[in-house]
Amino acid sequence: MATLQLASWATNLAYANLTSGVLIAANKSLYNWAGCAIGGFAFQPAPQIALNTTLSPFSGPPTSSILGSTNGSISRGFADAQVAALVNGIASHVDDYDDTHLETIIHPAGPVASALLAIAEAYGPVTGHEFITAFVAGVEAECKLGLSVSPEHYDVGWHITSTVGSIGAAVAVGKLLKLDTTHMQHAIGVAATQVVGMQEFFGSDTKSFHIGRAAQGGMLAALLAKNGYTSSLQALEAKYGWLHVVSTRENATAYFDQLGNVWEIEKNTFKPFPCGIVMHPVIDGAIQLSNETALKGLSINDIRTVELRVNPEVLILTGKTNPQTGLEAKFSIFHAAAIGILYGEATPSQFTNDVVKNSTVVDMRKKVNVTEDKSVSKAEAYVSLTLNDGTTLEKHVEHAKGSIENPLSDAELKMKFMQQVSLVIGDKRAENAYKAFSGVRDMEDVAVIRGLY
Amino acid sequence: MATLQLASWATNLAYANLTSGVLIAANKSLYNWAGCAIGGFAFQPAPQIALNTTLSPFSGPPTSSILGSTNGSISRGFADAQVAALVNGIASHVDDYDDTHLETIIHPAGPVASALLAIAEAYGPVTGHEFITAFVAGVEAECKLGLSVSPEHYDVGWHITSTVGSIGAAVAVGKLLKLDTTHMQHAIGVAATQVVGMQEFFGSDTKSFHIGRAAQGGMLAALLAKNGYTSSLQALEAKYGWLHVVSTRENATAYFDQLGNVWEIEKNTFKPFPCGIVMHPVIDGAIQLSNETALKGLSINDIRTVELRVNPEVLILTGKTNPQTGLEAKFSIFHAAAIGILYGEATPSQFTNDVVKNSTVVDMRKKVNVTEDKSVSKAEAYVSLTLNDGTTLEKHVEHAKGSIENPLSDAELKMKFMQQVSLVIGDKRAENAYKAFSGVRDMEDVAVIRGLY
Repeated sequence: MATLQLASWATNLAYANLTSGVLIAANKSLYNWAGCAIGGFAFQPAPQIALNTTLSPFSGPPTSSILGSTNGSISRGFADAQVAALVNGIASHVDDYDDTHLETIIHPAGPVASALLAIAEAYGPVTGHEFITAFVAGVEAECKLGLSVSPEHYDVGWHITSTVGSIGAAVAVGKLLKLDTTHMQHAIGVAATQVVGMQEFFGSDTKSFHIGRAAQGGMLAALLAKNGYTSSLQALEAKYGWLHVVSTRENATAYFDQLGNVWEIEKNTFKPFPCGIVMHPVIDGAIQLSNETALKGLSINDIRTVELRVNPEVLILTGKTNPQTGLEAKFSIFHAAAIGILYGEATPSQFTNDVVKNSTVVDMRKKVNVTEDKSVSKAEAYVSLTLNDGTTLEKHVEHAKGSIENPLSDAELKMKFMQQVSLVIGDKRAENAYKAFSGVRDMEDVAVIRGLY
Repeated sequence: MATLQLASWATNLAYANLTSGVLIAANKSLYNWAGCAIGGFAFQPAPQIALNTTLSPFSGPPTSSILGSTNGSISRGFADAQVAALVNGIASHVDDYDDTHLETIIHPAGPVASALLAIAEAYGPVTGHEFITAFVAGVEAECKLGLSVSPEHYDVGWHITSTVGSIGAAVAVGKLLKLDTTHMQHAIGVAATQVVGMQEFFGSDTKSFHIGRAAQGGMLAALLAKNGYTSSLQALEAKYGWLHVVSTRENATAYFDQLGNVWEIEKNTFKPFPCGIVMHPVIDGAIQLSNETALKGLSINDIRTVELRVNPEVLILTGKTNPQTGLEAKFSIFHAAAIGILYGEATPSQFTNDVVKNSTVVDMRKKVNVTEDKSVSKAEAYVSLTLNDGTTLEKHVEHAKGSIENPLSDAELKMKFMQQVSLVIGDKRAENAYKAFSGVRDMEDVAVIRGLY
């Protein structure tokens, strides 16, 4: 019944059902996604390789925006909706700077918004209300599914954002295409059978490919279903269907019963640091240490050691001691602590290939030691720094900046958007882009967004 | 080391390494694939929905043939290579009439050939020798990988043809693009992270989508890697890589050690009946019964019961008692027995929606009873028929027609091709198509094939 239950809820969801809390969360999730995609495309090779040298020969008529591409090789930053979904998905995730549903470690907006914007531009007009409703349907679908297989599904090595993301994207696009419940079930099926993403690829270009491919595959699933392509009406719950094949735990019905009552999108958080979320407590602590007056005027030579005490998951996911690229450094707890202390901030600028190879940073990473401690939760970290004179400074971060308990303020989230986007298109256009992407709900046709910044 | 071992073997493989047995098997595999794709596209909705109503708005310049499409909506049967790989993959598998590597139940040609022909046409010139070498590399890659996770991987519900198929397609396309070993490792990685296909979708349009999506995803992986997209050099063997994530058994090195010594393509078999291979022994027995003189002149009303004794896997995969469509009937052992006895043959004509709903066929299916017996191998079946007068006729099929032990002759395989293709383009052009697809190895540019029939 799980597939029917999800499809039925999604097809019946109306804009009027969305609470003010949901609307606020959806709005933040959307513009944060757009800012990440714009910044990610402009400064990372992955989305540019995917678009310019790989997929441009395969693009059909350029209906849909490539975010962040102002001079792309295809018709000034447009491509067909399938290509756009893939490239925008890659770009939105490539900096590991997007959003996080902390219970599942899903980054919800990427697969769903990347598919939705591309299809809305190609198949419009789509109103802001329709767009937001479809977006929320997709996010709820992927997060409820993620909850129902967590943590077992993630623990075996799947990259949960993309494995549930294709289904979220299919539900969202299916909603926009006004599929009935049966067709939505088929869309869920075609999406469910495309399981993209493993953790081995963290630290490489392939991590962000997962999100793009999920967006594209989910869109394709919804389009196929709309046109009568059949899959299964029990795609999720069947013995050889999604839940059982990809996880030893499945509890979908329990979570689907809460659809529309407990809104997962309200739990969405936004990353203040562009890297794996399990490193955020350490970075927060390291930045706090860097601001200590006791360190002012000292150099790296005065620092004897940095000791981290963290949950064991941190080393499993981010144990790279000697990263060689910016992308690898996003999964190095050693790099995270080093740059937090050295720079007092953690922005995309601290995760470039140059900074990763900087000799001071390399030396600093070598001073970092990590102790695993099961009694430390994944949300917290102990960061202590010992000087050569024996002075020890310690910070205990209970909830890192960006967590549910310590979220970015609206002003901080806007500043994050502006910092990313201004570098690409300048302050004035960035401000226009912020207004555009934070004003989707009031648009009569979301496709106009391309002309607003 | 598994990823490096596979990549290294594939990049070093030369046409001169291929034995005459390998060349013969590759040739049969290729033209059988083409025949299935031509017939599949013309008479099944799945590939036509995928192409005409779904993907045509997304096709770039039409470089690559859509097999079987003589009047498609895109430029008389062409599309871009990504779309062509997807559609040809669907078409080649949609009738469940293709080829089978029996140890793994992989249908090897579909993902590999669908990607290869499309890319050869788009990126040529590609010689016949290059094409055949790449094809063999892809087939060996997917079958060795399949062996290394069998049967556990299949048993949990994955559709192994597509889950290994994307990797096979990436190896083949990567070979054609002349990737070096490191780039081939990255290609394997991008392909490995795209795990498409679950058994729940057997009997629906989504089953054949698996093969098309694997072909397309593997091609995309090779193109991305060629352009510098990074994945992992240990994509297969890493703790959170392909082998461990998708199976509890992994023994890749043991099989990769045999690459180039034991050729899996030589074990490829060709289906005489367009349906799930586990049903073939029953169909063979049913057809034999239908030819018994004792049944001549009798009607269905004279038949009391048909008793099947089969391996338990048969009911797991093909237990649909009351199929409603031709695709569902391809996974109904009840339908298989019924049409074998009623028609004395099992061709695509016995798996149409009309035949499935025919009242005589429905009545006949109801007379079929199945007994599971672990002592009966998957290769064999006992089929017995009891008349109302008490007469019982029994057939024991030890190895079904089309198996390694009882293969189609060259003439029969050609006839299978001709039967499928003649219905689409007439006898004369079918004969030309047979010559073309069975003559690939001698071509200076495989792309000319489109003009030969």
